[in-house]
Amino acid sequence: MNFGIDDLPVRDELRGKSPYGAPQLDVPVRLNTNENPYPLPEPLVERIAERVREAARDLNRYPDRNAVELRTQLAKYLTDTSGHEVGLANVWAANGSNEVIQQLLQTFGGPGRTAIGFEPSYSMHALIARGTGTGWISGPRGEDFTIDLAAAEQAVAENKPDVVFITTPNNPTGNAVPPETVLALYDAAQAAKPSMVVVDEAYIEFSHGDSLLPLLEGRPNLVVSRTMSKAFGAAGLRLGYLAAHPAVVDAVQLVRLPYHLSAVTQATALAALEHTDTLLKYVEQLKAERDRLVSELRVIGFEVVDSDANFVQFGRFDGPGGSHAVWQQILDRGVLVRDNGIPGWLRVSAGTPAENDAFLDAVRELKKEST
Amino acid sequence: MNFGIDDLPVRDELRGKSPYGAPQLDVPVRLNTNENPYPLPEPLVERIAERVREAARDLNRYPDRNAVELRTQLAKYLTDTSGHEVGLANVWAANGSNEVIQQLLQTFGGPGRTAIGFEPSYSMHALIARGTGTGWISGPRGEDFTIDLAAAEQAVAENKPDVVFITTPNNPTGNAVPPETVLALYDAAQAAKPSMVVVDEAYIEFSHGDSLLPLLEGRPNLVVSRTMSKAFGAAGLRLGYLAAHPAVVDAVQLVRLPYHLSAVTQATALAALEHTDTLLKYVEQLKAERDRLVSELRVIGFEVVDSDANFVQFGRFDGPGGSHAVWQQILDRGVLVRDNGIPGWLRVSAGTPAENDAFLDAVRELKKEST
Repeated sequence: MNFGIDDLPVRDELRGKSPYGAPQLDVPVRLNTNENPYPLPEPLVERIAERVREAARDLNRYPDRNAVELRTQLAKYLTDTSGHEVGLANVWAANGSNEVIQQLLQTFGGPGRTAIGFEPSYSMHALIARGTGTGWISGPRGEDFTIDLAAAEQAVAENKPDVVFITTPNNPTGNAVPPETVLALYDAAQAAKPSMVVVDEAYIEFSHGDSLLPLLEGRPNLVVSRTMSKAFGAAGLRLGYLAAHPAVVDAVQLVRLPYHLSAVTQATALAALEHTDTLLKYVEQLKAERDRLVSELRVIGFEVVDSDANFVQFGRFDGPGGSHAVWQQILDRGVLVRDNGIPGWLRVSAGTPAENDAFLDAVRELKKEST
Repeated sequence: MNFGIDDLPVRDELRGKSPYGAPQLDVPVRLNTNENPYPLPEPLVERIAERVREAARDLNRYPDRNAVELRTQLAKYLTDTSGHEVGLANVWAANGSNEVIQQLLQTFGGPGRTAIGFEPSYSMHALIARGTGTGWISGPRGEDFTIDLAAAEQAVAENKPDVVFITTPNNPTGNAVPPETVLALYDAAQAAKPSMVVVDEAYIEFSHGDSLLPLLEGRPNLVVSRTMSKAFGAAGLRLGYLAAHPAVVDAVQLVRLPYHLSAVTQATALAALEHTDTLLKYVEQLKAERDRLVSELRVIGFEVVDSDANFVQFGRFDGPGGSHAVWQQILDRGVLVRDNGIPGWLRVSAGTPAENDAFLDAVRELKKEST
């Protein structure tokens, strides 16, 4: 008999659970975790080595606890790309947007409080809520995966959540939320009770539309969260950040672990920010490839959700075994996509043209076999 | 009127609080945060740049979520230095021992549960308890800063905590806890209710005594936490880890943020572990300097707590202004030490011989003036 998790005095709500995470399989074409398929350009790799070497010479000292240089450069990037003036005092950074969200929930959620998201959406919101003792409310989303404003407003009015998550572009469905919906939900949330509205813009650089950063003006209870994992091609770096009223930045510092952001992380992120222009060119290529995936999948005969992200949700797979059987059939052809557990649908990340071709060939073949 | 933290819907217990962290002052001699005064040797700096360059070539991909190579090397380090066999399955790593402790409290503490520490001790234990909604119990410590076993056992029996912290060597007092005290407290804790005992060995490499790792044998509710910040001279890296029964490692994965440990952090830590032998030579120098600080401070006429760490607690300062006035007087002489808010005492980190001389000169001068 093996001694296992349930033999330890773990919290009751953790019993019988498994760790979150997509299967990590060794497959030729990996289009399952919305990674950027383009490796960092070699001059940037060299610049990272250079900046990290410099940081390593001072590694015996604690890092800058307030990450001032990094936050300044992130603010500049946001200002340059959105036209909305963002300053050092508006920006906070952490180990991935997951840690940003964790800090927000520790500050504004937590025991005796609740958060709402409109599901299906980024599943980590609910998981981090659980991890921080925040009650989770699964808000509604329409059949077409858009947010039905009336239903969403009603859910907010009835539940009076302390934190409202709006993911735009939404993951895993890919569609963006119109700014007027975000504004209406912000107002509905404030009417219910003073509460924080977190707009998760992890994929915003891939959108046909604009960032909602300008909405921060005059809305101190609004937070926009971002990541360098996707547009900056740096999923391995784990660098998430937020923009908000300076009081929000002050508040999360009450719960952040001191020196949470290592000197090597700060140095690497700063190097990547120096190469923003190059990296954003890859984003343009990925947007074109994403648009191609949407149209080709429709030509093949799939239902496809409009996408403003670097991935596409497609279906419907209502046959025997449902979407998971199709996921396996695509995997058998050497292409790994994501089954997010949404019945009838799968998600594919936009890869390089060759990777996308391999994926399209695989699903074209499957479609032929099934008809 | 400025809009501030308290105008936001923050949790009630955060109102009026300030962020944790020692003052970061620009002073010639900084002996306040127990940093290792020796910069990493240049060959290691080069090796870090090399390994990070390699990791950066794959930075568009998520890092190894399970940090298998890093945990394997940490296990090897623990086995080599303790003589107790530790394997991959026994080790878990995170962004600083603070994140390790946060994950442990999310798993075994949290709302409706409590943790105890014997204070004064590492103040982050209480702060992370608050951040995770875990009730905090301030357990007793004797006048001489040792743990009075009878009093400690009584506190455990009365409060039935879910998590027991034992810091050895203790911070900020410097003294180690005898193994038999740890064993007795483990038994007392289990007798009260099934609970986890976390032995925080952040400073164990500086101890005259041995690690308590061998106690893990047959004690699945025992955890030993460690850090690369001190002995490895890598405070800027933020790499903490734990050794425990494999079930504990499985359990913390239920609350860890996925991909919490970046590829650059893993690469840097692996480079440092390649240079363990060199880095442990600095530890020997620091132990000698720590012993010198203890004896010189006693010669000068201070009360000094026996130290098994890379810092020394000295006093007593019961004059007007107490220890904070003396802290300022030492600072006025260009040396930054730590006021941990323990009336009558200050803490000084062991620096280089020159830094320690500067510190000793400063306090010698002060002592002369005051007599």
